[in-house]
Amino acid sequence: MTRCGVGVVDGAPGRPLTMVACGVVRTPAEEDVPLRLLKIEQGIEEWLDAHAPDLVAIERVFAQHNVRTVMGTAQASAVAMLCATRRGIPVTLHTPSEVKAAVSGSGRAEKAQVGAMVTRILRLDAPPRPADAADALALAICHIWRGTANNRIAAALSRAREPRP
Amino acid sequence: MTRCGVGVVDGAPGRPLTMVACGVVRTPAEEDVPLRLLKIEQGIEEWLDAHAPDLVAIERVFAQHNVRTVMGTAQASAVAMLCATRRGIPVTLHTPSEVKAAVSGSGRAEKAQVGAMVTRILRLDAPPRPADAADALALAICHIWRGTANNRIAAALSRAREPRP
Repeated sequence: MTRCGVGVVDGAPGRPLTMVACGVVRTPAEEDVPLRLLKIEQGIEEWLDAHAPDLVAIERVFAQHNVRTVMGTAQASAVAMLCATRRGIPVTLHTPSEVKAAVSGSGRAEKAQVGAMVTRILRLDAPPRPADAADALALAICHIWRGTANNRIAAALSRAREPRP
Repeated sequence: MTRCGVGVVDGAPGRPLTMVACGVVRTPAEEDVPLRLLKIEQGIEEWLDAHAPDLVAIERVFAQHNVRTVMGTAQASAVAMLCATRRGIPVTLHTPSEVKAAVSGSGRAEKAQVGAMVTRILRLDAPPRPADAADALALAICHIWRGTANNRIAAALSRAREPRP
């Protein structure tokens, strides 16, 4: 809820991936949850407006860690799912372990290792900051690499559903 | 996520309360979460359009029970918060114990007892069905009875913020 990482990656499996943009949607910790969710929605809408992604990947949340944090993450991810689905963009969820394994080969990789691999895969000069933005890019990389045929089918179906102008 | 109870109650503390409407927003358990959240949003928007409430009360979710259920409830409640806040309607959260205590005098009241008290308070012929709808009415009653001055202030502020036609 405090820092919702966002990353935009262009590419396809077997081809070099390119970072288009990354950043975070921030909301003040002292504000009420309903208002924070509204600000997250507005922030995500701006990212979707700016980049019009074909596919959206979101972290799958598990309630195994800190209870308060997990509830906030679940609610923020619900908002992200809603924003993408409302536009007819296919949404896929990946667990943090799946993301770590996709970019580093290990589902238990440290945060710094994920940042280093994101930097290498996207041929950046330095690890993206803050770490939440790097995590979001890792999620996008994971999605492109895992998706292949499924992604293409989902994107094609989504385009077919779009209302004609 | 499967049955999101909705209840609309009219009234003020110290005066008889009236049930305006109640029901549930349903989503199919076999559908993907993003699509279910979208359907919940559409369902809640219809309720807000139909009744234009001054205030919205939503259950405060705790992660102490079944993990899967709680995540779904947290996400559905995030959607409800978003829909109300987007319209400038003040949102308040109450825990299930607060709601039970408000209508029955005990924070550990059984579901049937809550249903019976909702029936009595709203002078209905029979307990509202399904139980999720009765729970939503109990939440609305709790909110009206707890709110008093705070509710009036929040509603006035909200009206003052509305753009003039």
